[in-house]
Amino acid sequence: MARDKAAIVNRLRRIEGQVRGVSQMVSDERYCIDILHQVQAIKAALTRAESEILKDHAACCVSEAIASGDAAEQRTKFNELIDLFEKVKR
Amino acid sequence: MARDKAAIVNRLRRIEGQVRGVSQMVSDERYCIDILHQVQAIKAALTRAESEILKDHAACCVSEAIASGDAAEQRTKFNELIDLFEKVKR
Amino acid sequence: MARDKAAIVNRLRRIEGQVRGVSQMVSDERYCIDILHQVQAIKAALTRAESEILKDHAACCVSEAIASGDAAEQRTKFNELIDLFEKVKR
Amino acid sequence: MARDKAAIVNRLRRIEGQVRGVSQMVSDERYCIDILHQVQAIKAALTRAESEILKDHAACCVSEAIASGDAAEQRTKFNELIDLFEKVKR
Repeated sequence: MARDKAAIVNRLRRIEGQVRGVSQMVSDERYCIDILHQVQAIKAALTRAESEILKDHAACCVSEAIASGDAAEQRTKFNELIDLFEKVKR
Repeated sequence: MARDKAAIVNRLRRIEGQVRGVSQMVSDERYCIDILHQVQAIKAALTRAESEILKDHAACCVSEAIASGDAAEQRTKFNELIDLFEKVKR
Repeated sequence: MARDKAAIVNRLRRIEGQVRGVSQMVSDERYCIDILHQVQAIKAALTRAESEILKDHAACCVSEAIASGDAAEQRTKFNELIDLFEKVKR
Repeated sequence: MARDKAAIVNRLRRIEGQVRGVSQMVSDERYCIDILHQVQAIKAALTRAESEILKDHAACCVSEAIASGDAAEQRTKFNELIDLFEKVKR
């Protein structure tokens, strides 16, 4: 995790602000359906953050595992991706 | 939105803290896969918050629409739920 | 369920054919990743079928519940939608 | 794709039967909500089939790419997984 670190941190800070905004909507007794649409927007923003983190992972850790020629390390990297895939798929 | 307001606000504050924790993990150059598992945990926590907000909606706004006997209001409430469903389903 | 019955049945027959196609791909030892993209396409097609069935539900059963002025019936219809929502959201 | 081919084909045949069952439910004008729960069950069954296909992929194609020591082939395999992940995540 190094390449686009600042961009990803900024993106996550905006998401943190969105979550704070939803807390405020609940405190202000805003309409539930509007709140639920905002929660959906946060989940979509988290999904975009995941994509960037995953691209970073591919550009960095996965590339190193390939370059190393170390079969055990490569297997670990593949298995981690497949485990994560299983978790996301549910 | 009134019934369990404090509980929902607390839940959202914890989620805000989790997002801040993920920013820190990125700043600290923690391992991408660990970060991605943590992002999944946040999405799951948001899904549980949605359930509580939706239950509140049912207990409050939907109940009022039924009690009112106002067909137009009832139709609005149904359509909102179906629209939200479409958004979540994607 | 009545309005667009034929259209929905046709859509489901196409999906049935897509699932049969995937079985054939597995039998023919086609490349796993191609098979997995095809499974994703089937899930997306099922999601579109759900939308049509849900629209039919709104146009028919929900409308009747509103027209009836029967509060118990209306509550049942709302609770069914919220239960389904919980299931989809996971 | 070779290891558990028969098991995966059987699983997909059962899913094909489930889709046919849903067509029949629509033709028989069964209750929409019951139909929608059945569609959810099919999507969950497809998700389980994906897991098996993915495990097969790891045990076979990915293992070969690692054993080959061919960096270009390994990169292709990683990129395919990441592309698929992006598709599923949406």
